[in-house]
Order: sequence, then C-alpha cells, then structure tokens
Amino acid sequence: MKQIGAEFFGTFWLVLGGCGSAVLAAAFPNVGIGLLGVAFAFGLTVLTMAYAIGHISGCHLNPAVSIGLWAGGRFPANQLLPYILAQVAGGLVGGGILYLIASGKAGFDPTAGFAANGYGEHSPGGYSLLAALVTEVVMTMMFLLIILGATDRRAPLGFAPIAIGLGLTLIHLISIPVTNTSVNPARSLGVAVYAGDWALGQLWLFWVAPISGALLGAFIYRLIAEGED
Amino acid sequence: MKQIGAEFFGTFWLVLGGCGSAVLAAAFPNVGIGLLGVAFAFGLTVLTMAYAIGHISGCHLNPAVSIGLWAGGRFPANQLLPYILAQVAGGLVGGGILYLIASGKAGFDPTAGFAANGYGEHSPGGYSLLAALVTEVVMTMMFLLIILGATDRRAPLGFAPIAIGLGLTLIHLISIPVTNTSVNPARSLGVAVYAGDWALGQLWLFWVAPISGALLGAFIYRLIAEGED
Amino acid sequence: MKQIGAEFFGTFWLVLGGCGSAVLAAAFPNVGIGLLGVAFAFGLTVLTMAYAIGHISGCHLNPAVSIGLWAGGRFPANQLLPYILAQVAGGLVGGGILYLIASGKAGFDPTAGFAANGYGEHSPGGYSLLAALVTEVVMTMMFLLIILGATDRRAPLGFAPIAIGLGLTLIHLISIPVTNTSVNPARSLGVAVYAGDWALGQLWLFWVAPISGALLGAFIYRLIAEGED
Amino acid sequence: MKQIGAEFFGTFWLVLGGCGSAVLAAAFPNVGIGLLGVAFAFGLTVLTMAYAIGHISGCHLNPAVSIGLWAGGRFPANQLLPYILAQVAGGLVGGGILYLIASGKAGFDPTAGFAANGYGEHSPGGYSLLAALVTEVVMTMMFLLIILGATDRRAPLGFAPIAIGLGLTLIHLISIPVTNTSVNPARSLGVAVYAGDWALGQLWLFWVAPISGALLGAFIYRLIAEGED
Repeated sequence: MKQIGAEFFGTFWLVLGGCGSAVLAAAFPNVGIGLLGVAFAFGLTVLTMAYAIGHISGCHLNPAVSIGLWAGGRFPANQLLPYILAQVAGGLVGGGILYLIASGKAGFDPTAGFAANGYGEHSPGGYSLLAALVTEVVMTMMFLLIILGATDRRAPLGFAPIAIGLGLTLIHLISIPVTNTSVNPARSLGVAVYAGDWALGQLWLFWVAPISGALLGAFIYRLIAEGED
Repeated sequence: MKQIGAEFFGTFWLVLGGCGSAVLAAAFPNVGIGLLGVAFAFGLTVLTMAYAIGHISGCHLNPAVSIGLWAGGRFPANQLLPYILAQVAGGLVGGGILYLIASGKAGFDPTAGFAANGYGEHSPGGYSLLAALVTEVVMTMMFLLIILGATDRRAPLGFAPIAIGLGLTLIHLISIPVTNTSVNPARSLGVAVYAGDWALGQLWLFWVAPISGALLGAFIYRLIAEGED
Repeated sequence: MKQIGAEFFGTFWLVLGGCGSAVLAAAFPNVGIGLLGVAFAFGLTVLTMAYAIGHISGCHLNPAVSIGLWAGGRFPANQLLPYILAQVAGGLVGGGILYLIASGKAGFDPTAGFAANGYGEHSPGGYSLLAALVTEVVMTMMFLLIILGATDRRAPLGFAPIAIGLGLTLIHLISIPVTNTSVNPARSLGVAVYAGDWALGQLWLFWVAPISGALLGAFIYRLIAEGED
Repeated sequence: MKQIGAEFFGTFWLVLGGCGSAVLAAAFPNVGIGLLGVAFAFGLTVLTMAYAIGHISGCHLNPAVSIGLWAGGRFPANQLLPYILAQVAGGLVGGGILYLIASGKAGFDPTAGFAANGYGEHSPGGYSLLAALVTEVVMTMMFLLIILGATDRRAPLGFAPIAIGLGLTLIHLISIPVTNTSVNPARSLGVAVYAGDWALGQLWLFWVAPISGALLGAFIYRLIAEGED
C-alpha cells in the first residue's frame, strides 16, 4: 500500500508539474518559460520525487518504466498491475487539478491542446506518424538505458535521481516539437481525457511506442552491461 | 541564537535573490531572464543556503516549512515562534535592500508589483481566487512532501538541498502566472509591505494557503512513508 | 565488446540528443529552446550517459577525449582504435536517426545546416578560420582539464559526470556562435555526412583542433597536478 | 607552484567562459542565450573548476574569495599575494584570448562593452553608484557566506562546488542589470583593460566593494556558525 500511495502522488506531480508548466507558463507573454522551461519542469518532477519517494516505491511514475524495469530483471511481474493502476490514477487526478486551476482564467479552452501528445496534424511541429513513432520508441529506449545504468549497483550511489530526472529534461529538449513528448503512457492519458476526441484517438501510439521502446532499452542494456568484457 | 541568525540571513537571501531577480532582471530588454530565470533564482537561494547553513538551523527559511516539519514530527513546537520571527525579519530586510537597489534606477515604481503575490486582478495571468487558493495549497503540499522525503533517513545523504532547491524552482515554473508563487508567507510579507495596499490586502491568502498545504503535505507523507509495506 | 557497445550507444545519444535539440527545437516559433537549450542538451547527453555507462566503458563518447585520456596516462593505447571506431559508428547512426525524424516534417532541408560545424561563411556568427581554430583548441583543452581533474583520485567520488556534462554545456554556451561547437570529431562527422559538401570540406578542422586541444589539456593537467607542491 | 598554475588556469576559464558567453552568445539573433545563459556560464566555470582543481589549490579564482577565506580563518595570509597575482594574470590572459576570438568577426568593437563592469551611465540598466555599491557588497557577502558554509566540515562532503558554482549563477541572475556583476576583482580587471578608459576609470568600485563584502561575509559566517547554540 505504501508503494501504491507513493506512485500515485509521484505521477500526480509529474502530470500536474510537467503539463502544468506547459499549459500555464510556457507561452506567458514576453517572459514565458518556453519549451526549455517545460523540459526542466518535467525533469524536475522526476528528480524531486526520486529523492522524496525513491526509498518507498522506487519512483517509477510511468508504466513504460515499470515494464522496462521488469524486462531488465529489476522488478517483479506481480507488482506491474498495481503500480500501473496507481500511475494512471495519479495522472488522471493530476490532469484534473490542472484543469481546475487552468479554468480559473477567462478564455481557457482545453481542446486547444492541454499539453496532450499528438502526431501528424496534432504534432506541435507537424511531424508525421512515422517520425512520432521512431521518436517515442528511441527516446523511451534511451530513457530505460539511463535508468538501468544509473541504478546499476556499479554506478555511484545516490546520483541516479539526477541522471534520470535530467535525462527526462533532455528527452523533452529534443522531442517536444515532434510529439509534445510522452515516453510515458500515464502522462499521455492523464491529460488526453480532458483535451478531448483527437487526443484520445491518437492515444494508442503513446502506449505502444513507449512500452516498445522500454523493452528495447532493457534488452540493449542487458546486452552491453552483462556481456563479456 | 545561531539558528536564529542562520534563518534570518537565509530568508534575507531568499527574498533578495528570488524577488530581486524578478524585479531587476526578468523583463530586462531583449536579454531578460524571464520567468525561467526567476524560477531558477528562487530555487538556487534555497539550494545554496541549504548547503551553507543546513548544518546550523536546518535551513527552513519559510514559516510554512517550519510548521510542516513540526507536523511531520521533525521539529519541536517550542522553536516555531523564534524561527518564524527570524524568517519574517529576514524577509523584510531582504525586501528593504531590494527596494534600496531598485530605487537606484530612474522611474522605479514599487506599486507596479515589486514581486508581490496576488490573485484575481493582481494575479500575473488573471487567475481567480479559487485557482490561486488551490495552487498555493497543492504546491506547498508537494513542497513539504519533497522536503520530508528527501530528508528521510532512508534517502541518500547530502542530496536533499538539490531536491528541495530545484523543487522550489519547479514550483515556480508551474505557478508564477497564477499567484506570482508564494508557498512562503515570509517571502510574501517581505515584499508586500513595500508594494502597498493591494498586496497587504491579499496577504491573508499567502499565509493561510501555504500553511494549510504544508500541514496536508506532512499528513500525506506520514501516510505513504510510515504505512504498512 | 561491452565497452564498444557502450561507446556506440553513448555517442549515438550525444549526436541524436545534442544535434537533435538544435535541428528540431532550437528555433521552434515563439517558444524555441534557443542556444541555451541546445547547450543543456549536449551537456545532459554526457551527464546521463556518464552515470549510465561510466562503469562499463568510462563514457568517452569522443575521439579527442579518448586521445587526451591516453596522453594523460589514463587510457591504454591499444584500445584507442576500437573506441574511436565505435564512437564514429555511433555518431553516424545517431545522425541517421535524426535525419529520419527531421525528414518527417514537410520542408526539411539538411543542407541548410543540420547542426554541422563550420567556420568562415559557415560559422553561425560569421567568425574567421583563425577564431574557429583558437576556439576549438582552447575549448577542448579546458574540457580535458575538467575531465582529468574531476576524475582524479583526489576529487570527490561520483561527481565527475556532473562536472564533465555541465562542462560541455558551458563550452556550448560560449562557442556555438563561433563554430556551432564541436570539441568532438565524432559529433562533427556524424552530421557532416548528411549536411553535404561544405560540411565535409570543413571537417578537417574539427578533427585537428579538438585532438590538438585535448593533447594540450592533458599536458597542462599533468603540469599543474603532478608538479611540486 | 601547483596552486599558482591551478589558480591561473581556473581564473583564465572564469573570464574566458563567463565573459565569453556574454560577448559571443548573449545577444545572438533570435536564439541568443540572454542573461540567463550568461548566469549559467559564470556559475559553471566555477563548478567545473572546483571539481577539476579544488584538490590542487582550493579553486578560489577570485581575490575577494581568497581574502574572505583568510578572514574566515581558512587560508594563510602569506599565500594571499601569490594567489591574487595568479588570478589577475589568468584573468588578463582569459580576456586576451576572448579578444582574439571576438575580433575574428567583422565589426567587433571592444569599447562597446566587452562584458566590463560599470555603474551609472555604464550600468547595463542605468543603476546609480550607490545601487552598484550596495549590490556588489551584499552579493559578495552572500557569496562568502555560501563558500564558508558549504565547505564547513559539518556540511555534506563533495557538494560544495555545486553550491558555490550555482551560487555564482544566482548572483548573476540578480545583479547583471545593475553592474554587469563582478563580485570578483580579477574578472573585472581581466576585461576592463580591453574595454578601455571608462571601464578602467570605474574599476576601483569592483575591487573595493567585493573585498569589503567578502570581509563582511566572513565576519557574519563566524558569528552565526561559531556562536553559542
């Protein structure tokens, strides 16, 4: 139960903080934080939570991460379902609180985006389905490689939250223009339900691609880390 | 007495540094630091002071944090009053030095803002009282969750200042457009007295909401950290 | 073989992440990450990989770094060739995946830049060949001084990835306008092949200058670190 | 001799990197790094060097820091002069290399600024002599408080370079508009000689104020850190 609570509040914070910075502050007139600020916000939700609850649940906050850690031999299969349910619930409540705050400003329109992920005509920069698919697979693959490597028992102790959090910042610095950056099915779902039809219609990609990428990343890490010297 | 001095100078630095970056540098023509720079400035005041005076006073710099740490079972009730008085005094002197510096430029007008916190017509982005209340409660709740978690004896040693400082940066990345971000009654008071009537009239929210959020955060952390496995 | 795999994926990430942020996100309308975001992206590729694969290969990701570490007495000569080949291959594949993603947007033109390095009329800010040469030599010299110093047995344990990664960020903050910043022959080659004739024609400088600078940096570090007290 | 070499190259890097980012990249069209990027660059020169040469010379890179450490009981008086001379020499050579690079672009005019410090009509934001004086004294005072606190034997080991480096970033986030931020006489001198008459005429303030502030900071730290509990 402790782990479930930790994953719930952690994913709540990831969606409220990451998507919140995008919805509330990215395009603020003249002094907005831009995509650079949004990238830092997403990364810092993970960095802060990894120090705050890492000792409770391991701080996955992401179904693709939980599945990748299982594939990497670091997480038991029988905990996958409760973790993923807690992450999805946390993401949905995080999106809901953000909706409540954002609607406190006149003219708020969630269907204009609400930080949902998309491809094709809903890609921020107009990138194709193929580009979106490749991007989400490769970004999540590298995210898992960072996670598995930085938490390896041979890596320096205590620094993993910095590597993983700033890794998520880096992933956003590269890929927001392509898909608005998911690499996390719970984050995508957590705002898609409020953004409406188009976001729900494209949601499949942001479950399939991150999970595929996570499995690929776990496979590659085992290959390079456990091979012969 | 050592703790009092440390809290005084720490909160002095938080207000001078955080609010100073907003007043002096945020909207500098063409190359201004924007809300992203202000978010980093606030966070770095806490990060730097936590390494500099953490071993002296614990580096709270914030009445809501002191109260939340008491509720979390980490701080004795009989030290609350002297800590809060030192924080308030440090904030007021920090605001005063900022006033002195800012008035060294022709055309300085503190009533135009002076980094004070506000809601409704004094919210930077025009957010309602309800949105401001929810934002300040939830942001301070998560701030305490980060503080209590990162200083938990099970968390890696020495990293808490990074998690807590950058946690404050993250909170600003999300919420400056809503309330100009308080989560700290001493910071709000420290500039409100110089900004004038409207800021003092709205000050109640920036004491009530952060303290409520801190109590809530302490309650939640105890729930998820000390529950059954 | 493990080291080869690690260097391949690490350099793949450096080119995809660093150059990817420049190609995809730097000049995004209104909210683009700018050169500041690109500087953070390059640095974070190294920071994240150093925690992820540092315990496998040492995480060089750069022929100039491998050569400088050899000159500094930290890396055996007989591993130089396999490391450099893995880095070059990783850079080329990273550039290829970036090409695939970037071409998913209508109007993509790699010959317009593709984050390639250049001098004279191909310097982002129009800097001369001499300025480019001095910049790349001095920047790589200081990069090696940081690497050799931060991994010295007398330096605090575990922090080197932060110093080295953010050192690369700093180098980009200074020198993108001069040469688009290389300090890494594999990074330069990895995108030059896709950018076309001019980039390949100027590529010599981005092998000669970084390697010269790395040798100079190794020489200086030995001088100041191993001299008499 | 080792310490002298380390201080020389460290201060060389501080001036080349910090002032270099300002001269070369701050106002680059459309994607310039702005004052936020310059603030990170200055801080990262110190962070990187503190990890690289901290174990050799302590990494002061600043006459005011050396004097403040002496006043704080951490540095012997008989090493003050050689350290300060090495810092001044490093700063001058750093400024010289920057001049060489910057002059590789058509239209370069060092008298237009060259990142020199100033007040009154030479303050970037037009701040008065009094505002400049107060700013430089208080900023250096807080810088020393951070340095003395983060390197206190009771502070967590290994983190001081992060606190001190990002402390310098914070100081720049606040005060570039007032004086272009010095807090370091060697940095001010290192570019003033190339910027010309006005910069040399105002140089006195950037020796007097930082050194006064450093002495004040050392006094305050001893007061709050060594007082009675």
